[in-house]
Amino acid sequence: MKALPKSLKNAISALQSLPGLGEKSATRIAMYLLDSPQERVKEFCDALLKMKQSIRRCRDCFHLSDDDLCPVCSDPARDPQQICVVETTSDLLSIEQADFFKGRYHVLGGALDPINNISPEDLTIPQLLDRIKRDRVKEIIIATNPTQQGEATAHYLVEVLKEFPVTVTRIGVGIPMGGDLKYIDPVTIRLALEARRSFP
Amino acid sequence: MKALPKSLKNAISALQSLPGLGEKSATRIAMYLLDSPQERVKEFCDALLKMKQSIRRCRDCFHLSDDDLCPVCSDPARDPQQICVVETTSDLLSIEQADFFKGRYHVLGGALDPINNISPEDLTIPQLLDRIKRDRVKEIIIATNPTQQGEATAHYLVEVLKEFPVTVTRIGVGIPMGGDLKYIDPVTIRLALEARRSFP
Repeated sequence: MKALPKSLKNAISALQSLPGLGEKSATRIAMYLLDSPQERVKEFCDALLKMKQSIRRCRDCFHLSDDDLCPVCSDPARDPQQICVVETTSDLLSIEQADFFKGRYHVLGGALDPINNISPEDLTIPQLLDRIKRDRVKEIIIATNPTQQGEATAHYLVEVLKEFPVTVTRIGVGIPMGGDLKYIDPVTIRLALEARRSFP
Repeated sequence: MKALPKSLKNAISALQSLPGLGEKSATRIAMYLLDSPQERVKEFCDALLKMKQSIRRCRDCFHLSDDDLCPVCSDPARDPQQICVVETTSDLLSIEQADFFKGRYHVLGGALDPINNISPEDLTIPQLLDRIKRDRVKEIIIATNPTQQGEATAHYLVEVLKEFPVTVTRIGVGIPMGGDLKYIDPVTIRLALEARRSFP
C-alpha cells in the first residue's frame, strides 16, 4: 500500500513472516507497538534476542534449556527411571501442559523417515540408549506421533529396546476427549476399537 | 509452566502481550524464532526498532510518516482540495485499502468525548481549519466512525465548517456488502432506510 511509510511497511512484513500472522493482524500489532513507549518495544526485542542467545539443548534429554540441564532434568522430583520419548520439544510441552507425567523426557529431534533420509543416527537414539544404561531406566513410554514416520520410529525403538531390561509402552491412541465419532477418521476408529478396555 | 526455560518463558510472555496473540500462538512464534537463524531474529527486531525510531506524524495531515510529509501528502497526484477526515491512522488505512479515494486525509487523533474530557483542542481540528484556508479546500468528507463519539465529532465539524466556503459530506452509512439483514443492528437498518436511493 503506497500510503504506508516505508519503515512501517517493513515492520508489518517482518511481523507477517511469523507463523499465524496475516496482513491484518501484523498491521494491528505494528500499530500497537507504535503506540507503545520506545522502552516497551526495546524490552520486547530484548526478550526475543536473549532467548535466541541463551537457549541450547539439554545435555541429557535434548529439551530446550538455558543451562546445561533443562528444568525437567534438573528437577530432583522427576523420576529419572521413567522416560517419555517424544519427537519434538512442542510435543514435550503438550504433555507437560497436561500436568500428569512425573518422569523425564527424551526429545528425538524428529522421526525416522527413509524417504527424506532421516535415519536413527540423525535422531538422538544413541544418546537415549546411553541414558537407559546410565540411569538404569525402568520404563520407556514411546510418545511419537501416530503418523507413518512416528509409528515407524516407535517400531524401531521397540526392536532396539528388546536388548535392554526395560518396560516399553506406547502412549494410548483413540478418540480424544470431546471428540465426535462422526468426524473421527477410520484409522483412529480402528485403533480405538483395538484399544478397547473392560469397564473397571 | 515449570518445564519451560526462563528465557523462552520471557519471550512467550513478551509475544503474548501483543494484541491478538494468545498463549498457543505466542508459543508457536517463539518456537519458530528459535528455529530461525540468529540473523533473521536480529533483522526482525531491527525492523520494529527502526519503525519505532523513524515514525512521526505528518506535518499536514497527522498520518504516520518517516518524513516531514507522509506518502499521501507528498504525492502530487492526490488532490489537496478534497480532504477526508478520519479519527485514526487505522481508519485511513482502511479507506486507502479500498483504493478509490484520490484526495488527501486529515487524522483527528480520536473523536470528541466529553465524558473522557476530549475536546476539539485535543484533536487536530485547529490544524484542519488552517489547512482548509491555506489550500482553499473544496470538499471535506467526514469519515468519523458511526459511534456516539464519531457522530458527535461529525456534528461539531459540520457546525464549525459552516463558516468556510467548503462542501461538507458524510461517508455513507448502511448495510455493508455481503452483509445479512438478519444480523444487522436496528440503528444501522434505520440509517440505511433513511439513506435509501432511487434506482438510477
